[in-house]
Amino acid sequence: MIWKAPCPTPNPRSRVSLSFLKVVPMSVASPGLPADLLPADLLSELSALLGERLSLNEAVRDQHGRDESYHAPAPPDAVAFVRSTEEVVAVVRACATRRVPIIPFGAGTSLEGHVAALRGGVCLDLSGMNAILAVRAEDMDATVQAGVTRKQLNNDLRATGLFFPIDPGADATLGGMASTRASGTNAVRYGTMREAVVALTVVTPQGEVIRTGSRARKSAAGYDLTRLYVGSEGTLGIITEVTVRLHGIPEKVMSAVCPFPTVADAVNTVIETIQAGVPIARVEFLNARQMEAVNRYSKLDHAVTPTLFFEFHGSPAHVDEQVEMVKACAEGHGGLDFQWTATPEERDRLWAARHTAYYAALALRPGAKGFSSDVCVPISRLADCLVETQADLDQSPVLTTVVGHVGDGNFHVLFVVDPDNPDEMAEAKRLNSRIVARALAMEGTCTGEHGIGHGKMSSLEDEHGEALAVMRRLKQALDPDDVLNPGKIVRL
Amino acid sequence: MIWKAPCPTPNPRSRVSLSFLKVVPMSVASPGLPADLLPADLLSELSALLGERLSLNEAVRDQHGRDESYHAPAPPDAVAFVRSTEEVVAVVRACATRRVPIIPFGAGTSLEGHVAALRGGVCLDLSGMNAILAVRAEDMDATVQAGVTRKQLNNDLRATGLFFPIDPGADATLGGMASTRASGTNAVRYGTMREAVVALTVVTPQGEVIRTGSRARKSAAGYDLTRLYVGSEGTLGIITEVTVRLHGIPEKVMSAVCPFPTVADAVNTVIETIQAGVPIARVEFLNARQMEAVNRYSKLDHAVTPTLFFEFHGSPAHVDEQVEMVKACAEGHGGLDFQWTATPEERDRLWAARHTAYYAALALRPGAKGFSSDVCVPISRLADCLVETQADLDQSPVLTTVVGHVGDGNFHVLFVVDPDNPDEMAEAKRLNSRIVARALAMEGTCTGEHGIGHGKMSSLEDEHGEALAVMRRLKQALDPDDVLNPGKIVRL
Repeated sequence: MIWKAPCPTPNPRSRVSLSFLKVVPMSVASPGLPADLLPADLLSELSALLGERLSLNEAVRDQHGRDESYHAPAPPDAVAFVRSTEEVVAVVRACATRRVPIIPFGAGTSLEGHVAALRGGVCLDLSGMNAILAVRAEDMDATVQAGVTRKQLNNDLRATGLFFPIDPGADATLGGMASTRASGTNAVRYGTMREAVVALTVVTPQGEVIRTGSRARKSAAGYDLTRLYVGSEGTLGIITEVTVRLHGIPEKVMSAVCPFPTVADAVNTVIETIQAGVPIARVEFLNARQMEAVNRYSKLDHAVTPTLFFEFHGSPAHVDEQVEMVKACAEGHGGLDFQWTATPEERDRLWAARHTAYYAALALRPGAKGFSSDVCVPISRLADCLVETQADLDQSPVLTTVVGHVGDGNFHVLFVVDPDNPDEMAEAKRLNSRIVARALAMEGTCTGEHGIGHGKMSSLEDEHGEALAVMRRLKQALDPDDVLNPGKIVRL
Repeated sequence: MIWKAPCPTPNPRSRVSLSFLKVVPMSVASPGLPADLLPADLLSELSALLGERLSLNEAVRDQHGRDESYHAPAPPDAVAFVRSTEEVVAVVRACATRRVPIIPFGAGTSLEGHVAALRGGVCLDLSGMNAILAVRAEDMDATVQAGVTRKQLNNDLRATGLFFPIDPGADATLGGMASTRASGTNAVRYGTMREAVVALTVVTPQGEVIRTGSRARKSAAGYDLTRLYVGSEGTLGIITEVTVRLHGIPEKVMSAVCPFPTVADAVNTVIETIQAGVPIARVEFLNARQMEAVNRYSKLDHAVTPTLFFEFHGSPAHVDEQVEMVKACAEGHGGLDFQWTATPEERDRLWAARHTAYYAALALRPGAKGFSSDVCVPISRLADCLVETQADLDQSPVLTTVVGHVGDGNFHVLFVVDPDNPDEMAEAKRLNSRIVARALAMEGTCTGEHGIGHGKMSSLEDEHGEALAVMRRLKQALDPDDVLNPGKIVRL
């Protein structure tokens, strides 16, 4: 029962091992060593197609069978490093005709076992498809290959005055973000991948290449295929290109941190802000333990108390208006000490601290793994949900932190656990079940942005009931042989 | 070749006949007169269930087989006036087990033959399901039965300080609006039904009742069933309840009309406004002929020239900022004469004139029918698209007007036609084909908001190509016997 005891000093190795997941050591690819479980003719077909870009190397396969969570790794039998939609078609056709599973892989930063090769098969690594195909500033959209990461896109946009707002903590690929319907700190103002994706290029398990939509801002042209593939986690088709909406960089940006006496005070400030219709760009909650982790990891010295991080976007006058309204909401809840960032560098440092909150929490206990809840509830229920959850956590020996995109009603309890300790895992899962049940009872969802993978399939059933049968019919219709990322979202 | 000659005075009867479509004359229901084409046991089952709310009356059936467009009517064999989700389940089960088509019906205001009973069957009239089930001001959402109309909802919201922004011209039902992925003048700021719908209750052709989502603002919980049913035009399931997002009534609202020298001047003003990131609430284009129609129909005296209608929402300071930016854009294009509405009544009169533009155009030629194009293109292509289209129209003898939700890149050419004149119809269809082909070549869509029905199925094929096969698989999976609104969107 000492799981909660944090490590006295942060261990930098935890960061090293995480970044390793994103490295693709091409030199270790070793075609010519057929995996026992794949048909020999499939391997020779893929090898002829990809040459050294087909890897059977154990380290490469291991990397591709795990994500950034506590879920047990499940390596694929081979990894195909593809470079084009045409190569994806060829790999998919070769595998699908032999009913060999295909698991798409971007940056490996998902959190629910999305990339685990539960039934073996070929991992389709799309990270080499990293070309930015078009940036159309005049239409405020861009088309990229699926392996482009959000930071890469934003770097590329620097000269345009535009930016791409969706920002999960990790530097995920846009294909991966579309696949999990990801969001992040800006969603309260700019929406999630559901709103950001304009159109997709998708390879079906039948090897067709389809374009799910046009570049028009709106359309009533038949079934919404774009939204069907967004969030489908590679189980219905392989996303190879993504067209996304961009936004103008605001004239003025202001960021602040404000400590609060209690969890309820912080959350009620957020609720009032949203209900007042303030178009706040970011409003993030961190509980006391998470603030402690962030201080250590990012070498900051904020008060160790429930805290909100704010950001405001707009014209100077409009930002000033928003700030005044939010300060008035905060004041009523003991939020008096707004610390404003003075420079863009200070602001970047603040948000980097927020974006590394997950790694900061893991660094509290070197060697531990992360297990993150992801519930999202209607905003009116958020205070109840978070206060009850915090009370649960306070009574448990498991080491946890809490962060939240609270403007959306979404928060994460991060369990910092040793997956090899069954008692600890059982306790974490018990707490997580209570959190999910509480959110569902409040008309919320079991996952705001992480997706289902194989880690949340029973929660999906609790949430959707009979609708799960409809999801199963969709999977059956589009991937009848269950070759695309099998064992995720629904089982056939 | 006198099709263009407008009638010297507007004929009020055209309005009367349109409103007639929305009247449900319950007294004419005549159960006991079995339609020849329906199985007798089905009729007795439905009659036992609904009593007088099952109608075989010819006038009632005729009303339910047509919409507000030029499409030939196709009456159903019976009309079932349902009152609850349970009744929908019972009717669907009774019909589906006998493979009898079921066609959902709201206000009958669609424009692409959506409600035509192409293969006979039972029309499911949901207009009696008009209860507002919950308004949750604190979460800015509402749940309504499918037959609630947008005006009814907004009337109900009056005391809350909230409003529902989606406003197709007609007072459509929310079930119908969800089914066609409708939008309207506010979409440039507030989005379409794609963004507005939070969750749906849907009856499947198997008679299951599913809930497609929770009330959380965002979710990554499996396939996006909400977005799948939004825009599916009753072909995949029957929407019986709709949960929608609401918005705060803005502190300040300002509306104006501004005439422009040319179509290009007006449209370029809009393009610059959107590219500058001005969060304009409404920006509507009307060409000279449409202004003439609006002046006559709504007894106004605006200049008969390409014109923009504007609306700005926000705090007083923020509205002033937006107005200054838009005036600067307009000035560069000869848009100097902004006429501001001074009172809420004047503003309502202005927007009523815009919302009745379709009826105003029809009133130019009494007895004529409307045939509306609905293309939507990326904003950078809008000026080219509209200018080339206007040149086409100027060279044709067909009477047309043009209106557009131009902030979205969406506009309608309204052909005011005699459907019984084959030459005229052929010319209108030739022009329409050119408009659609032009929009698709510009990476746009054949329909921004009206949907496919059976009127745009060939355009859908042109637009989606191979993706149509995926749509067909979805229909096949969810409605394998093709009983729900058959012959719309895709053919099995």
